[in-house]
Amino acid sequence: MHKRPKIVILGAGYGGMMTATRLQKANAHHDAEITLVNKHNYHYQTTWLHEPAAGTLHHDRTRMRIDSVIDTKKIHFIKDAVSEIKTDEQKVILEGGELEYDYLVIGLGSEPETFGIPGVEEHAFAIRSVNSVRHIREHIEYKFASYNSQEEKHDEDLTFIVAGAGFTGIEFVGELSKRVPELCEEYDIDRDKVKIYSVEAAPTALPGFDDELVNYAMNLLESRGVEFLINTPIKEVKEDGVLLNNGEEIKASTVVWTTGVRGNAVIEKSGFEAMRGRIKVEKDLRAPGFDNIFVIGDCALIINEEINRPYPPTAQIAIQQSYTCSNNIKALIAGKEKLEEFTPDIKGTVASLGGKEAIGLVGSTKLYGHSASAMKKVIDNRYLFLLGGMPLVLKKGKLNFF
Amino acid sequence: MHKRPKIVILGAGYGGMMTATRLQKANAHHDAEITLVNKHNYHYQTTWLHEPAAGTLHHDRTRMRIDSVIDTKKIHFIKDAVSEIKTDEQKVILEGGELEYDYLVIGLGSEPETFGIPGVEEHAFAIRSVNSVRHIREHIEYKFASYNSQEEKHDEDLTFIVAGAGFTGIEFVGELSKRVPELCEEYDIDRDKVKIYSVEAAPTALPGFDDELVNYAMNLLESRGVEFLINTPIKEVKEDGVLLNNGEEIKASTVVWTTGVRGNAVIEKSGFEAMRGRIKVEKDLRAPGFDNIFVIGDCALIINEEINRPYPPTAQIAIQQSYTCSNNIKALIAGKEKLEEFTPDIKGTVASLGGKEAIGLVGSTKLYGHSASAMKKVIDNRYLFLLGGMPLVLKKGKLNFF
Repeated sequence: MHKRPKIVILGAGYGGMMTATRLQKANAHHDAEITLVNKHNYHYQTTWLHEPAAGTLHHDRTRMRIDSVIDTKKIHFIKDAVSEIKTDEQKVILEGGELEYDYLVIGLGSEPETFGIPGVEEHAFAIRSVNSVRHIREHIEYKFASYNSQEEKHDEDLTFIVAGAGFTGIEFVGELSKRVPELCEEYDIDRDKVKIYSVEAAPTALPGFDDELVNYAMNLLESRGVEFLINTPIKEVKEDGVLLNNGEEIKASTVVWTTGVRGNAVIEKSGFEAMRGRIKVEKDLRAPGFDNIFVIGDCALIINEEINRPYPPTAQIAIQQSYTCSNNIKALIAGKEKLEEFTPDIKGTVASLGGKEAIGLVGSTKLYGHSASAMKKVIDNRYLFLLGGMPLVLKKGKLNFF
Repeated sequence: MHKRPKIVILGAGYGGMMTATRLQKANAHHDAEITLVNKHNYHYQTTWLHEPAAGTLHHDRTRMRIDSVIDTKKIHFIKDAVSEIKTDEQKVILEGGELEYDYLVIGLGSEPETFGIPGVEEHAFAIRSVNSVRHIREHIEYKFASYNSQEEKHDEDLTFIVAGAGFTGIEFVGELSKRVPELCEEYDIDRDKVKIYSVEAAPTALPGFDDELVNYAMNLLESRGVEFLINTPIKEVKEDGVLLNNGEEIKASTVVWTTGVRGNAVIEKSGFEAMRGRIKVEKDLRAPGFDNIFVIGDCALIINEEINRPYPPTAQIAIQQSYTCSNNIKALIAGKEKLEEFTPDIKGTVASLGGKEAIGLVGSTKLYGHSASAMKKVIDNRYLFLLGGMPLVLKKGKLNFF
């Protein structure tokens, strides 16, 4: 009996988790030894994190234990952080050990992009993990809770700056603008004292999105008291607020940084050729020059040839890649040479705006308000269904449609 | 028609609130113009505050709008803070104005006693108001929420020092020791990383209380992971913990100061003769030398002649004083010369220990565990009944007996 090949999957985000699930369903563990590595013993839904960050959804609703979805008798699970990939030795260095692989799937996800702006890492929060978002939620709540005990009022404690009006920024501002009145009620604070700024360097919020939908979103958020500073690059984040390029300062004790993401630092550290931490993968999702390393999710760069620009990294693409990736690994193990090519199939984009509000484009159909919000929930639930079937939808799904 | 005399009640704590209620029930507003002044538009239950401080009860359960209890058509309510009493002009100076009085009731409550220990005011929290306790609750929660996002762990963020093992200190430690496992669960933190210290300068916890009950309480709290440092005076509170008299330091990001109270600073500022902010009142509860100023609650000093020491200020005594005080004011208005004398009637003392646990002495009967806990709830509900009748008990009472 020949030795079973080792498949190692790094990261249990959308891509890694779905790849593991697909391989398990296909009984690939009969032909290979499969190991999934993740920093935490839970998987979380990155695209939901703006909600627990604002405190409008409990963070446990966005995560699930990995062993509640994966059968760990079929797929080994190792809770550890990845330090480096040694491609010449076909080894992964973990913080607490190392792992050999025959086939590697890199699904390590993203990191916030700071664009080298000083102070972002030291003074701004990022919406990136369960740990980071409950930190944000409690930070915000603490600012409200401590305000009335202050003898001299620090009004900057009630000013919230969200840097970046892309999808994550707008979705977070949407939740925050729904949460603020509740916090004012809870802590006896006048709503007028609270300021929410959405600051964006580009000439519009949601750059690249449909104008009419952008207007709808901005009007709605303004009606909830959000102030937009569009066309307003930030020069520096300070301990007590931000300095804008135009020389103005806004004092704020809370700055949340949402100006986009880059690939994982492990990519560069491991010597892969990369652009901002993302590997421009072959059509079969392998890293150029490696016939046994697949890259999926936020670390994979795919060009949209229609406009000759990279697709933005989304959960949707990561999930689709997991299908191609798991099929290709099975093909390689079976000794086939012809691999599947990956083509993204963008079904649509919906951004939630807090409460029952959202905007979306599905094909060329524009959605607003409650129908967009319901569509967003359909998308969220569909992923849960793909991952863990109806039981997972019932356990973690968003079932409060109306 | 002669001018109606003005009764001004300062403070809507136990004493002031009950005095106002008693006067209203006796229809004193027909014969006098009654004004109640309080910093907030709500009354709160000081003796419950250790619960919202730990996060085991919502702070709204401990407070009620003053106009939901007092009929403001009968008693004027002014939301303002008292700066000074000008006894020579029969005037009260408020932050936002001034008030003349013919009869004055001082029920301004207490302030934390720091004993001049450096750093207490700057670095320690006090359990003294709705504002202060929700600040503590959120501070504690924030320490848990931020811990997992720290690259270098600050273990002192999970160390909680409660200075003072008197009633408030022990009751708070009791709630905190019940809350910590919930916070560990919520924020994925190992319970063993969390330390709770109860630090007391005296040679025992709950000095003056029954030994057997003290032992019961200490054993119970130790079984929940509380570490007692008895006979251990604190020399200084620092930004990052406490320095003990014995030269040791304990690093902690949270220090809650519960070493007892003194009377209100307004007392001294207004020129009354006082001991630690408390006026040694006459038997009829008037301030010595003033025939129209009554002092009740934490600002009144009453000597227990059996042991020749002051009674500790309690809600029980404040409530009893409100009966004598309101009767005496009515008598004065009616032109009577003979006033009632106040004698405390100490019915018992019960300290809650978190969950369904408590200890108590009712007469000479010792109570433990669930029966003490149920007695504590009876006491809490009885006060609500005195204040606002059964509707208030149903709205704010503690009805979860078993």
